[in-house]
Amino acid sequence: MELNDKKVPEVVIKRLPRYYRYLRELLNQDIRRISSNALSKKMNVTASQIRQDFNYFGGFGQQGYGYNVEHLITEIGNILGLNDGEKMIIIGAGNLGRALANHNSFIKRGFKLIGIFDNDNRIVGSSINGIRVMSDSEIESFVQANNVDIAILTLPRSAVHDMANRLVKCGIRGILNFSYSELDVPESVPVENVHLSDMLMTLSYRIKNQKD
Amino acid sequence: MELNDKKVPEVVIKRLPRYYRYLRELLNQDIRRISSNALSKKMNVTASQIRQDFNYFGGFGQQGYGYNVEHLITEIGNILGLNDGEKMIIIGAGNLGRALANHNSFIKRGFKLIGIFDNDNRIVGSSINGIRVMSDSEIESFVQANNVDIAILTLPRSAVHDMANRLVKCGIRGILNFSYSELDVPESVPVENVHLSDMLMTLSYRIKNQKD
Repeated sequence: MELNDKKVPEVVIKRLPRYYRYLRELLNQDIRRISSNALSKKMNVTASQIRQDFNYFGGFGQQGYGYNVEHLITEIGNILGLNDGEKMIIIGAGNLGRALANHNSFIKRGFKLIGIFDNDNRIVGSSINGIRVMSDSEIESFVQANNVDIAILTLPRSAVHDMANRLVKCGIRGILNFSYSELDVPESVPVENVHLSDMLMTLSYRIKNQKD
Repeated sequence: MELNDKKVPEVVIKRLPRYYRYLRELLNQDIRRISSNALSKKMNVTASQIRQDFNYFGGFGQQGYGYNVEHLITEIGNILGLNDGEKMIIIGAGNLGRALANHNSFIKRGFKLIGIFDNDNRIVGSSINGIRVMSDSEIESFVQANNVDIAILTLPRSAVHDMANRLVKCGIRGILNFSYSELDVPESVPVENVHLSDMLMTLSYRIKNQKD
């Protein structure tokens, strides 16, 4: 598969995980081949949009016959880097950190959680989902020794900026940030911010604009 | 403010909470007026996109002078229904439910958490963030007696469909679903699905496509 030279738009990137999820569901139902029309109905995206999206990545096979679901999963999985076995750590072992550590769909997607860190000595040494909680001070040596790819931050707002700087310095490749604060890190380290209240606000908008 | 007749596109709806957040940050920094150009730089959206987005809702004031930040916050807050004091319950008091119950940015946005429910009798009766955990069986009467607007579901996949049906029957207005499963509810009840692994997949894509 070759990437086209065209820059892939943000909205298309955001749709890739959705395609991946839907296609996995199809395969679970033993559906082996699907047309862009059928996929379009399931996903609430137009068929031409789907074809356009896929064209950014070379098209993924013959339209007339529909798409081979398994092939599509492999291709999109490769594009998303899911077959690279990326190594993750969670920093912050509070309720959210614990919830994420127990979130098995992460593991199903090929990500490997290899460490959890906290600065609370009462928690350090305990285990969450079979993984030992280590001390904050061990982060740098751990990230370097284990070539950690992704850090998931579930820290208070006041602590997150220093932590992001420490992680960038020791070579982290990407950050998933649950703290309600935009990080100021170099462009070479991508950050995804999870804004839980944005989703609540979107829902609120939909409720308000419901015809009833 | 009058809504234009044009249907507001999905991407614009998704940007509204981001506008809201950025504008609140500006006001916190005591910035009272901002041009679409300045807002555009901060938000990584083009200035013409911002003007287009705002035009769906009547435009929000004179371009030449820039936007009045406080006015914009009020208007967008109204559009998002943030001034309606929507009442929420959390169903599922596991780690994720607890994390959300302690998530103060929800409350800052005008949402009111008024109940937490679980089916584990060891938890029922305890308190999280000052709110008593009630039994699953009390959901219907509570929702009806208190006109609950939003239910936040942090349940196992196997339990979420039955619960969604129960909630629809007793008149819930919207659902924020953290369970990894699409809900089959009537269109009149909007659902926002929070797919944590989608965000991880997007991050993985960005790492993989990083020029380095």
